[in-house]
Amino acid sequence: MVSRYALIIDPATPDDPRTDFTSTFSEVDATAPALSVGELSTQRGDGIFESVGVIDGHAQEVQAHLDRLAHSAEICDLPAPNLEQWRAATVLAAAHCGPGESVIKLILSRGVDHGPAPTAWITANPAPDFAGVRVRGVRVVTLDRGYDSAVPARAPWLLLGAKTLSYAVNMAAIREAKRRGADDAIFVSTDGIVFEAPTASLIVRINDVYVTPAPTGGILQGTTQLSAFSWMQAQGLTTEYRDVLTDELHRADAAWLVSSVRLAAPITEIDGTTIPLDAEFTARLNEYLLSPRD
Amino acid sequence: MVSRYALIIDPATPDDPRTDFTSTFSEVDATAPALSVGELSTQRGDGIFESVGVIDGHAQEVQAHLDRLAHSAEICDLPAPNLEQWRAATVLAAAHCGPGESVIKLILSRGVDHGPAPTAWITANPAPDFAGVRVRGVRVVTLDRGYDSAVPARAPWLLLGAKTLSYAVNMAAIREAKRRGADDAIFVSTDGIVFEAPTASLIVRINDVYVTPAPTGGILQGTTQLSAFSWMQAQGLTTEYRDVLTDELHRADAAWLVSSVRLAAPITEIDGTTIPLDAEFTARLNEYLLSPRD
Repeated sequence: MVSRYALIIDPATPDDPRTDFTSTFSEVDATAPALSVGELSTQRGDGIFESVGVIDGHAQEVQAHLDRLAHSAEICDLPAPNLEQWRAATVLAAAHCGPGESVIKLILSRGVDHGPAPTAWITANPAPDFAGVRVRGVRVVTLDRGYDSAVPARAPWLLLGAKTLSYAVNMAAIREAKRRGADDAIFVSTDGIVFEAPTASLIVRINDVYVTPAPTGGILQGTTQLSAFSWMQAQGLTTEYRDVLTDELHRADAAWLVSSVRLAAPITEIDGTTIPLDAEFTARLNEYLLSPRD
Repeated sequence: MVSRYALIIDPATPDDPRTDFTSTFSEVDATAPALSVGELSTQRGDGIFESVGVIDGHAQEVQAHLDRLAHSAEICDLPAPNLEQWRAATVLAAAHCGPGESVIKLILSRGVDHGPAPTAWITANPAPDFAGVRVRGVRVVTLDRGYDSAVPARAPWLLLGAKTLSYAVNMAAIREAKRRGADDAIFVSTDGIVFEAPTASLIVRINDVYVTPAPTGGILQGTTQLSAFSWMQAQGLTTEYRDVLTDELHRADAAWLVSSVRLAAPITEIDGTTIPLDAEFTARLNEYLLSPRD
């Protein structure tokens, strides 16, 4: 198993007619210097990314990740990515992942300060072992995101629908959750509406309906949440996008944080209130999420 | 004149007894690869920075920048920086700046993903030519920051008092200002209180008092604003820290955006309302800011 793999990508425009992008990829040593100190990703978190789960060398839900990459680029006024080029890079990186679970990151930076073009690269690494947390679950705390629920629509410069490299607040929220004795956080609005977790989407089951906050600009559309909903619908279960009130969380009869690499982590506690853990259902959901999916 | 200079720094702890840190600096080619793709600064904007102005090889207000670096590190749960080491690196980088104006950046990243220690580096580059804008001024628009003025105190995980590398929103705000035909932005709270500009502090003159928003957690304490206030006080002028209402901006009889490299840019227009430009005072203020200061 190659443990770490990285490619620097010379970004193509969307109308590039090539079908083989191999010549635009340069393999680099993931542990050696590869980026200059002038990189705007490092200086300003100015860029976007995707984290793609890989199971036994198969990259999961690539199209959904590529669609979101293009959406993030648009919100951030970055040049539109050539999605076929990114797909080819993703497939190539996945081929270098061994058996088991890995994670591929797609990163598109605004480039070098005053430079001519974006910088792009992709990395593949073994995933952390999340087998335990998928069974035993996570305790979460709700944290004020500081925004009311109408902010995303009226202030697009806050980039709330984009998956940017400026994740310092997301990381700080997880540290704050740990300080409070929990494992993870859920961001909520100042007017009592649930947004999302710092690095995951939320699904709650209330009265046998699987509910997730509507992705109306304030939150990212979760690729794993999308996939989980399609599976639930195929099982004949009822799913719903709607505003979720913070107060409702404590009445959920089950809840999960879902993301591309950790997959479905059942929530066992929210702000100290115990949430029932549906072990059987969680196991089936993760079994589905661990199966190869496009 | 060396146009670009960069040092990678092996971060020392604050209690490191050395007085000579030369052996902890490695000069690198600022245009060549120096950072690995695993850097959390690039992946998550997870780190802090300072931009120090340099005039004819003299780094300005170094202590104020070092103090703010330490303050940002504390807010972000980063290991406390050894300020004497950073001072030595700053002096060394300044010595490689030629005559005229330059900019030194101090960057402290959380390090490589799952790595043992932070990554630190410093760069020196020629400053853009801001001579014109210091005379002719900037047009600004106010932009909703999405937060009410009480958010910073109640939600420290939003890192509002820290100068983090997660500046994608700051950059997006400047792009939005340009889309609106202006040059720069001023962030305001949802309850009508002025915060700061994306990369500068605001000083307004109202009834012969020089006023700046109080740095109570929601905004950075501006090093150049501090220096400008001390100069104004020495001139016998009245300065004041207080809440500034958005509505007051349009009644200012003069206003400036002040920052370490552009220095004092007079504001000529706010949201389409003309603000008087005090050319003589602005010239004297910039003359002071261009003089060597510690």
